[in-house]
Amino acid sequence: MRGVKMKNVLVLIPVSQKHKEKLEKAGKNCNFVYSDPDSVSPEAIQAANIIIGVPKAEMIRASENLELLQLETAGTDPYIKPGVLSKNTILTNATGAYGQAVAEHAFALTLMLIKKLHLYRDNQHKACWSDRGAVSTLNGSTVAVVGLGDIGRYYAKLVKAMGAYVIGVKRRASDCPEYVDELVLTEDLEQVLPRADVILSVLPGTGSTRHIYTAESFDQMKDSAVFINCGRGNAVASDVLYQALAEKKIAAAGIDVAEVEPLPPESPLWGLENLVITPHISGGHHLRETFERIVDIAVNNLSAYLNGQELNNIIDFSTGYRK
Amino acid sequence: MRGVKMKNVLVLIPVSQKHKEKLEKAGKNCNFVYSDPDSVSPEAIQAANIIIGVPKAEMIRASENLELLQLETAGTDPYIKPGVLSKNTILTNATGAYGQAVAEHAFALTLMLIKKLHLYRDNQHKACWSDRGAVSTLNGSTVAVVGLGDIGRYYAKLVKAMGAYVIGVKRRASDCPEYVDELVLTEDLEQVLPRADVILSVLPGTGSTRHIYTAESFDQMKDSAVFINCGRGNAVASDVLYQALAEKKIAAAGIDVAEVEPLPPESPLWGLENLVITPHISGGHHLRETFERIVDIAVNNLSAYLNGQELNNIIDFSTGYRK
Repeated sequence: MRGVKMKNVLVLIPVSQKHKEKLEKAGKNCNFVYSDPDSVSPEAIQAANIIIGVPKAEMIRASENLELLQLETAGTDPYIKPGVLSKNTILTNATGAYGQAVAEHAFALTLMLIKKLHLYRDNQHKACWSDRGAVSTLNGSTVAVVGLGDIGRYYAKLVKAMGAYVIGVKRRASDCPEYVDELVLTEDLEQVLPRADVILSVLPGTGSTRHIYTAESFDQMKDSAVFINCGRGNAVASDVLYQALAEKKIAAAGIDVAEVEPLPPESPLWGLENLVITPHISGGHHLRETFERIVDIAVNNLSAYLNGQELNNIIDFSTGYRK
Repeated sequence: MRGVKMKNVLVLIPVSQKHKEKLEKAGKNCNFVYSDPDSVSPEAIQAANIIIGVPKAEMIRASENLELLQLETAGTDPYIKPGVLSKNTILTNATGAYGQAVAEHAFALTLMLIKKLHLYRDNQHKACWSDRGAVSTLNGSTVAVVGLGDIGRYYAKLVKAMGAYVIGVKRRASDCPEYVDELVLTEDLEQVLPRADVILSVLPGTGSTRHIYTAESFDQMKDSAVFINCGRGNAVASDVLYQALAEKKIAAAGIDVAEVEPLPPESPLWGLENLVITPHISGGHHLRETFERIVDIAVNNLSAYLNGQELNNIIDFSTGYRK
């Protein structure tokens, strides 16, 4: 066991009694404090040896007491900035908890757009029984999944089951999973864009993914293409996305993330007929299954840390990705 | 070959040159006339021995010249009414052409509703970045597919691939397809309703399916249930559907059909937040693949009829179903 002092575990996720029992069983000799990110005191943050959840980054102040920060999110961006965490702190995320929820949301957005259900919803508000024309199908279409992590892989399986040809786009070469027809490196993204009927972007927010989709990227896409972003909003600049859609460079887009969140009320993106916006809710705890998985990841890593075993989902500060 | 006289074939579907070549190859010695249901003359209808498409039922007047009516629709309701067709006319429909298009549309509606995308679309019109709460998933849910024809079977495969437990509801006992977990007879529908998280209705419009969903049916459903109707609108009375949704007996519904079509502008259904309405467009020719299948069915039946072979999709006037 690392250290002999009783560890202070600060839990900032909304756990039930059953979840508490699981956590306290994993951390038998620990001192547990339960709070939430909005009302937790700076003192509690500074006193914690282990935090489970997402404290405000500016409250951590590179605390030397903090040995392990187990995030409830997959995204790590606020915590890998210099000065937030001590270099002695181990950062782990909740990769694996969100695959189903975010992928299903992205999949629902995809189908909504290719079947024009957003346009029929708009018609409905005008009591208008009117045909909006041809639709398309995933069956036989080409889908590019940009970012082949947990979410991307889950989405790839869903579109594959609908009959799509799946191109996985990822940072590093690897074996091709059975539900992916073709693997391409992120550096060759521009070769994929002209071929795709649907582009799902589920890239994490790192320096190298910022503004990865440029005006030229949208020029390269088919004019019938559908673009879905359920990764990070800064993968595409708001004005670039607006132009692409307003000028109908592509057919439609669905975004669960925006470059600035919340998307300001004055943003022209709100008014685009061919854009569907959801307010960064595809993950979170909106699907019960997600939260159960987060608790399981936290319990396993808490136990592993206290017993000197290997942790899952350790983040490399320099890339923001898992080591 | 039946008869020696040159047959008059009236084609009322919007065929391309390539389609015409296919048809005329199948009907080598026939006299082809191409028109459309809105502008075709009564004389042309009366002169036709074979019609491909959907002429206005009242223009047929039990023509004794009409030997074969090959519909472009799956629904047969207008043509099985007494006095429309001579009892010597063979009626065939386009079952098999619409499975993919209608099932995919129903599937997209299902996902839109369980992921609350209709509510986010509404928020978007108010430039409102606001959370609409918990969502559900098809993974582990129970889906009742009421009407296990071509469309129902296609939909069953799609929801099965998402991880649903599928209950097929059909008129007659049969073997259970691999993508259906359980088969129940239509007469036992009320035993299924309390168990289902999603109910897809794709029943044809026949005497026995009219108003099959009563106020009591909606009472029996889970309050979290989602009801989708892509069959015939008269399976549920408009006021019954309105009450069920307004009183939140179920969570939401999606309909591509209405008891009266077009749904009148004054219908209170338009204003329901928890109902999504599409204007009977899930079939039609909105998906290119559908029309290709219709032409193939027509070509095969034309050839079979002229050569005295067995036709596909022959309709029994007494039930409206295939023989």
